[in-house]
Amino acid sequence: MAIPKIVILGAGYGGIMTAINLQKSLNYNEAEVTLVNKHDYHYLTTLLHEPAAGTVSSEAVKVKVKDLINEQKINFRKGIVESVDTANRRVILEDGELEYNYLVMALGSEPETFGIDGLKEHAFSIRSLNASRVIREHIQYMFAKYKYDKDEANVTFVVGGAGFTGIEFVGELADRIPELCAQYDVPREKVKIYNVEAAPTVLPGFDQVLVDYAMKVLTEKGVDFKINMPIKQCTPDGIVLASGEEIRSKTVVWTGGVRGNSIIEKSGFETMRGRLKVDPHLLAPGYDDVFIIGDLALIMNEQAGRPYPPTAQMATQQAPVCAHNLLAKIRGGQLKEFVPQLKGTLASLGKGEGIGMIGKRKLLGNTAALMKKASDLRYLYMLGGLSLVLKKGNLLRRV
Amino acid sequence: MAIPKIVILGAGYGGIMTAINLQKSLNYNEAEVTLVNKHDYHYLTTLLHEPAAGTVSSEAVKVKVKDLINEQKINFRKGIVESVDTANRRVILEDGELEYNYLVMALGSEPETFGIDGLKEHAFSIRSLNASRVIREHIQYMFAKYKYDKDEANVTFVVGGAGFTGIEFVGELADRIPELCAQYDVPREKVKIYNVEAAPTVLPGFDQVLVDYAMKVLTEKGVDFKINMPIKQCTPDGIVLASGEEIRSKTVVWTGGVRGNSIIEKSGFETMRGRLKVDPHLLAPGYDDVFIIGDLALIMNEQAGRPYPPTAQMATQQAPVCAHNLLAKIRGGQLKEFVPQLKGTLASLGKGEGIGMIGKRKLLGNTAALMKKASDLRYLYMLGGLSLVLKKGNLLRRV
Repeated sequence: MAIPKIVILGAGYGGIMTAINLQKSLNYNEAEVTLVNKHDYHYLTTLLHEPAAGTVSSEAVKVKVKDLINEQKINFRKGIVESVDTANRRVILEDGELEYNYLVMALGSEPETFGIDGLKEHAFSIRSLNASRVIREHIQYMFAKYKYDKDEANVTFVVGGAGFTGIEFVGELADRIPELCAQYDVPREKVKIYNVEAAPTVLPGFDQVLVDYAMKVLTEKGVDFKINMPIKQCTPDGIVLASGEEIRSKTVVWTGGVRGNSIIEKSGFETMRGRLKVDPHLLAPGYDDVFIIGDLALIMNEQAGRPYPPTAQMATQQAPVCAHNLLAKIRGGQLKEFVPQLKGTLASLGKGEGIGMIGKRKLLGNTAALMKKASDLRYLYMLGGLSLVLKKGNLLRRV
Repeated sequence: MAIPKIVILGAGYGGIMTAINLQKSLNYNEAEVTLVNKHDYHYLTTLLHEPAAGTVSSEAVKVKVKDLINEQKINFRKGIVESVDTANRRVILEDGELEYNYLVMALGSEPETFGIDGLKEHAFSIRSLNASRVIREHIQYMFAKYKYDKDEANVTFVVGGAGFTGIEFVGELADRIPELCAQYDVPREKVKIYNVEAAPTVLPGFDQVLVDYAMKVLTEKGVDFKINMPIKQCTPDGIVLASGEEIRSKTVVWTGGVRGNSIIEKSGFETMRGRLKVDPHLLAPGYDDVFIIGDLALIMNEQAGRPYPPTAQMATQQAPVCAHNLLAKIRGGQLKEFVPQLKGTLASLGKGEGIGMIGKRKLLGNTAALMKKASDLRYLYMLGGLSLVLKKGNLLRRV
């Protein structure tokens, strides 16, 4: 009998944790597992706002895949996925093909620009580690350029979207500004940070006390909020708001939305904004060999009547269920259902500041920042044990 | 009797050395000297290719004016000169005016683009310390961007002009590339450096043995030369050569020519490419109160039948003559004539490599690099004595 082939696409939170869970349980020659990823490293997507702002190095949030997997149990293939041919059970890579018996699609998300004119062409997004480095280097370049040509658009920064990523990024950027001002000899008052949000509030859906606290902290750090204000257009020279107001800026960072990776649509799946409503076992509807997890998976919160937002927490909770179900398929066991256990939500507002909910408890300020740090370290521990915590822990931002 | 007012415009090689020479000889209340400069620091223009490439920090080539002048003898005014009203003996600054009895114009040069289409708009130039930092930050940004979008134009660098600055910059850039490749994880073979020169040779007028050596060293470092090849056009996406060939590049650095600072023309002087043929005492023709020195001064080499090229060496030699003549005007002494003493020419080709002529002696390789270093240190000594040599010497590039 042929050894079943499992292919996992993507080494983000969902993919890498599925691989790690699998390698713990797999017996010798029980399955041939291949993990495919664009890069030879995994990165901590929820922390990308930090290297983007330049407050931590890119290295801090990057872990080599080979340091996480046991290569005797999991093959790693660096490659770019183009599509999946589910009829013939093949993954089409840019430079080859892979056959599978079971597939895990964990390809994550991409920015959703909601058709806003020029956003795709002229705005940055914090979509990957390389993209975050582009932002950091661009910001530094703009400070140097301002010092040379005194164009204030060079030191005006617009962040579109005041959800988690937007809020965390402006907090981090505000922290970085004094350092950049000193380094490039630019007066602090010349630098502007705008956070523009179309919804009537920042952090929509979050507790009002925490929202108020976040706005207070960030405003004191020098962030100007434009709330209830959609962006109409983005140009190489800035943005035009729905009100007609223009903000001249050479750096617009769009954090206003994500959709599932478009590879899922290229593979013939019908999705809602790139996300696929999965069955309770995390299988794609109508398939018994394709699991969909992480940002690609749409899971309904039946109580609230809307989907759970895609988060790292959801992805890491899905991974062990997905690994269990893969083994059940191979061994003939019982499939498990995925039930989200929402532990809480924490957002950083820059150094030593944060907000969050754990259960029904609201956290503010340094307590929230500490809990966020603890949660980052907990993830590192889950990922690579104590040695990874020791290796990366002190590279991460100090609280 | 009123104390005569001396105003020195520019704290480059010529201006700062004139101030330093003056303050050594001036008696108490003999003159009111004001040195005007755009920045509160002097920088070593001949070394700007190093911070531009990123091989040394900007700090290394920068000296605070206040560390060089005796403020009891010289007033320092940070300000931007707009023009000079010679009829009324006034200097018009962006934020005020200054009266003078004697003026020293030492405002340096600006890039000359010879009307090449798009060069002014789309090419960088190594014209100031701030401009050099823009180039460094832009290069780093481009490496980050390449890693993100794989557009080879991002890691293709075009240097227009293979005179001193061009040659020294490509040498320095070639040295920096391996470090950038490692830092941004970019394969070395993706990076291209082109040095494009309209003249039939690099370093026109230099000894052929040295020219051949420079080309050999730089070619081995990975520089592609396009000699005898004018640039027809510069666009945001690269350059078009006279041959019709296009080179896609997001970084074009123009080093192909300089002209005198256009403020001299705005002040009503008639110039040749912004340079004014001065009399033997360094006075502007027809004036007995306006000295013109440094890159603004055109001095004929009667033997060769063409002007001496404007260099730091010329400027620093003019400074003591200018200071002497200012004192002579005030005290009623004899004016001195300026006679250039060409000590030699040295060009760096990156770390540990250089070429040069000292008298009739040709220098190559490490010997030339060492002599170049010695000459840089000698200038620091002239400028600020041993303490400045000790302070900056080790910040400068090691040979």
